[in-house]
Amino acid sequence: MTAQPVSDQHASDAALPVTLADIEAAAKAIEGQIEHTPLRYSRTLSEITGAQVWIKFENLQFTASFKERGALNKLLSLSNSEKAAGVIAMSAGNHAQGVAYHASRLGIPSTIVMPKGTPFVKIEHTRNFGAKVIIHGETLADADAHARQLEKEQGLTFVHPFDDKHVIAGQGTIGLEIMDALPDFDVMVIPVGGGGLSSGIATAIKARRPATSIIGVEPALYPSLSAELRGEEAKVGGATIAEGIAVKKVGKLTAQILRSLMDKVILVSEDELERAVTLFATVEKSVAEGAGAAGLAALLAEPALFRGRKVVLVLCGGNIDTRLLASVLTRSLVREKRITSVRIIGNDQPGLLARVSTVIGESGGNIIEVFHNRMALDVPAKGAEFDITIETRDALHTQDIIDALTEAGFPPRTA
Amino acid sequence: MTAQPVSDQHASDAALPVTLADIEAAAKAIEGQIEHTPLRYSRTLSEITGAQVWIKFENLQFTASFKERGALNKLLSLSNSEKAAGVIAMSAGNHAQGVAYHASRLGIPSTIVMPKGTPFVKIEHTRNFGAKVIIHGETLADADAHARQLEKEQGLTFVHPFDDKHVIAGQGTIGLEIMDALPDFDVMVIPVGGGGLSSGIATAIKARRPATSIIGVEPALYPSLSAELRGEEAKVGGATIAEGIAVKKVGKLTAQILRSLMDKVILVSEDELERAVTLFATVEKSVAEGAGAAGLAALLAEPALFRGRKVVLVLCGGNIDTRLLASVLTRSLVREKRITSVRIIGNDQPGLLARVSTVIGESGGNIIEVFHNRMALDVPAKGAEFDITIETRDALHTQDIIDALTEAGFPPRTA
Repeated sequence: MTAQPVSDQHASDAALPVTLADIEAAAKAIEGQIEHTPLRYSRTLSEITGAQVWIKFENLQFTASFKERGALNKLLSLSNSEKAAGVIAMSAGNHAQGVAYHASRLGIPSTIVMPKGTPFVKIEHTRNFGAKVIIHGETLADADAHARQLEKEQGLTFVHPFDDKHVIAGQGTIGLEIMDALPDFDVMVIPVGGGGLSSGIATAIKARRPATSIIGVEPALYPSLSAELRGEEAKVGGATIAEGIAVKKVGKLTAQILRSLMDKVILVSEDELERAVTLFATVEKSVAEGAGAAGLAALLAEPALFRGRKVVLVLCGGNIDTRLLASVLTRSLVREKRITSVRIIGNDQPGLLARVSTVIGESGGNIIEVFHNRMALDVPAKGAEFDITIETRDALHTQDIIDALTEAGFPPRTA
Repeated sequence: MTAQPVSDQHASDAALPVTLADIEAAAKAIEGQIEHTPLRYSRTLSEITGAQVWIKFENLQFTASFKERGALNKLLSLSNSEKAAGVIAMSAGNHAQGVAYHASRLGIPSTIVMPKGTPFVKIEHTRNFGAKVIIHGETLADADAHARQLEKEQGLTFVHPFDDKHVIAGQGTIGLEIMDALPDFDVMVIPVGGGGLSSGIATAIKARRPATSIIGVEPALYPSLSAELRGEEAKVGGATIAEGIAVKKVGKLTAQILRSLMDKVILVSEDELERAVTLFATVEKSVAEGAGAAGLAALLAEPALFRGRKVVLVLCGGNIDTRLLASVLTRSLVREKRITSVRIIGNDQPGLLARVSTVIGESGGNIIEVFHNRMALDVPAKGAEFDITIETRDALHTQDIIDALTEAGFPPRTA
C-alpha cells in the first residue's frame, strides 16, 4: 500500500470504526492511570538487524502488558449502572490482568473466566488484582461461551479482549506516545493476535503520518490475519511460545481496520521468537514474553525489508512463565553451540570417563552433565556409552574439542 | 551514625579524597556520553518488602553497568600524551567493558588483562568493544600483577576499577542523578565490592543530604568492607553469584571514605541474592546480575530495617551469564515448591509409571522429568525407583499431590 494524501486518509479513516479522535479521547481519559512507557533506541539491536531500531517498552506497564490501556478505556466508558453491575472477561492472560487491576482500582466488580490449563501464575495474579476467577472449559471457546452466559445471567458488561471500539482506541494511545517521542520513523512493527493493538496503533499512525509503513507480525503457527486478508479460513495450531497472539480468528472490527491500514504481515517461526526473547534479555536486559518479542522476531525473519530504515517495535508484554524463560535461555546456548552434547562410546573400564574429561578440560570445555547409558543396543555388552554435555566458548571452540577428542581416540558423535 | 549539621558534614568532606565538587565536575565531563538511567518506583517490590522502593536502573547503560561512568571520567582526565600511549586495566567483568568501550570511542588504545576462567561472553564483548584482551594468570591477583608489569614496560596508564579519585567521582554521578530525580528519601542502599560505587554515591549524597542513611551490601561470602571497618583481615571465598562484588580487599581511598560516610553494612546470603535476581526478572522485567541485585537482597535480608522508609536501590549491573540466569530462575521455582521432585518406589511391573502419572495428572500436576533408577540398593532387585519432577501451582498444591499419591498407594519420598 502506498502513502495516501492526508485528506484522503482522513476521509477513509472516517469510514472505519475507530478514528484518531477516539484515540485522542482515550489518551485523555486514561492519562495518569497508565504508564507512559519509555521509547529507547537500541544501538546493539540496530547493529544486529541492520535497521535503526527503537523499542516501546510496554512490558513496563504495571501488569506488564499494553492490555491495560484498552481495558481501562473500556471501563471508563461504562455508565454508572454498568459499573455497579460489574464486568466480565474471558482471558488466559494479559487481558485478564488488565481488566482485573483497573476494575478493582475503580471499584468495579470483575469476573474473569479462564480455561483449564491456564498457567498458575496468571490465575494467581488475576485473583490478587481483586477479580473473581472462574476456571471453566477445555478451550478458550468453551471459556468464552461460559463468560457470555454469565454476562446474560448476571447482567454484566463483557469486556472483549480486542473486538471493541473502546479497547482498540485505548491500545491506539501507544501510537500517539510513539509519535510524540519520535519526530519521524519509516516503519511501525506490531504483533498481531486478535488485532486490537495493531488496529489501534495503525489508526493513530496512518491518520497523522500516512507515509509510515505498518507491518504486522503473526506466529507462523497462527496466521489468522494473513488468512483473513486473503479471505481464507486460517489453518492454526501447535505449541507456540507467543501464546498471547495465538488466536484462531481476528475480530470483525479489527479485520476491517487492518484490511484498510496494514501494509504487510510477516510470519515468524518459533525459532525466531525464541531468539528474539533471548536478545531482549541479553542485550536490552528486558524480559519479553513470546508475543512481546514478535516484532524483533520479524526483523530477524526478514532483515532485508528493514535494512537502513527507522523501525519502531512494540515490546508489548513481559509475562513469560519463569520456567519457559529459563528454557528459552538455555536453548539459546544450544543454538549458538555454546552448549553441546557429544556421545562417546568406549570400553566399560575404570578411567574412561576420567580420560575423556581430561581431554575436554584441557581444551577449555566445561562439562555440565554426564549421562551413562549401559542399555543402548548400539553399544557392545561390555562397552559404555556416555552423553556428555559441554559448555564452550562458541561453535568454533566446540569443533576444537571434538577434534581433540577424536585425536585422543574418542571420536564423539554429536547428539 | 546520626545525621550531622550540614556545616560539619562539609568540613569532614573536605578532608576526604573525593569531594562533591569533584563529582559535579565528573557529571559535567561525562554528560552526553553516558545514559541518565531511569529511576522508577516499584509498587510490587514495595509491597513485598514493606519499604517504599525506588530503583536506579544502571543496568541500562550501554555496557549494562555503572562502571562506564568512572572509567570514562578517568579517561577524560588523561593528558594528550597519556591518551596517545593508551591505557591498561585488569578486570574479569564490567570494568573491562566500560574501559574498552569508552577508550575505543575516544580513540585511546586499551589493553585489558583478564585471568584464565573469565566467562567467554565477557572476553568476547570486551574484544568487540575494541580492546586488546590478554588472558593471563590463574587468579585476579596474578592478572593484576601482569597488568602492572605491562603498565611499566609499555608506558600505559593503569585504570583502577575502584581505588582512584576520578573513578570514584565518576560513580558518584549516580548520586547526583538520584537526588535530581527524587526530592527526598531516607535510605540509599549500595552494593559494595572494592567500594568505588558506594564511596562515590555516599560522597555525593552525604554532602547534599547528610541525614540520608547510607547502607552498603556485601555478599556474606565476601565481607571485605565489614572486616575493614572492624580493622580485621577479611575471611573471603566461595562461589557467589555476585562475582562483580566478590572482592578480597576494598581500596585505600574507598575505605577511608566509607569509614567516614557509611552508616551500616548488610551481608546477604546466596539465597537472598538469587531471590533478588528472580524478583527483578519476574516483577520488574529487568535482568540483574548477582551484584546488581544485592540492594534488593539486603531488603529481603533485613526487612525491619527498611519498613516504611523511602529506599533507593542501585541495580548496578545486568551482565549475568545466560546459563546462570536460567539456572537461578529454575531454582526459584524449586524454592517456591513450584517444581518438586518425588521418589516413588514400586514393583517393576508394566503400568506402574502410568498409574502414578495418572494420579499426578488428575491432581493438576505437570510432570516435567522422569528418572528411572534400577541400580539403587534401597530398592528390591525386582523393584523400581522413579524420581519424578513435577511442576505445581504452589507449595500447598505440591502437598495435595503428595497426599493423593499416598492415598493411591504410592507414598512418595521428597528428594
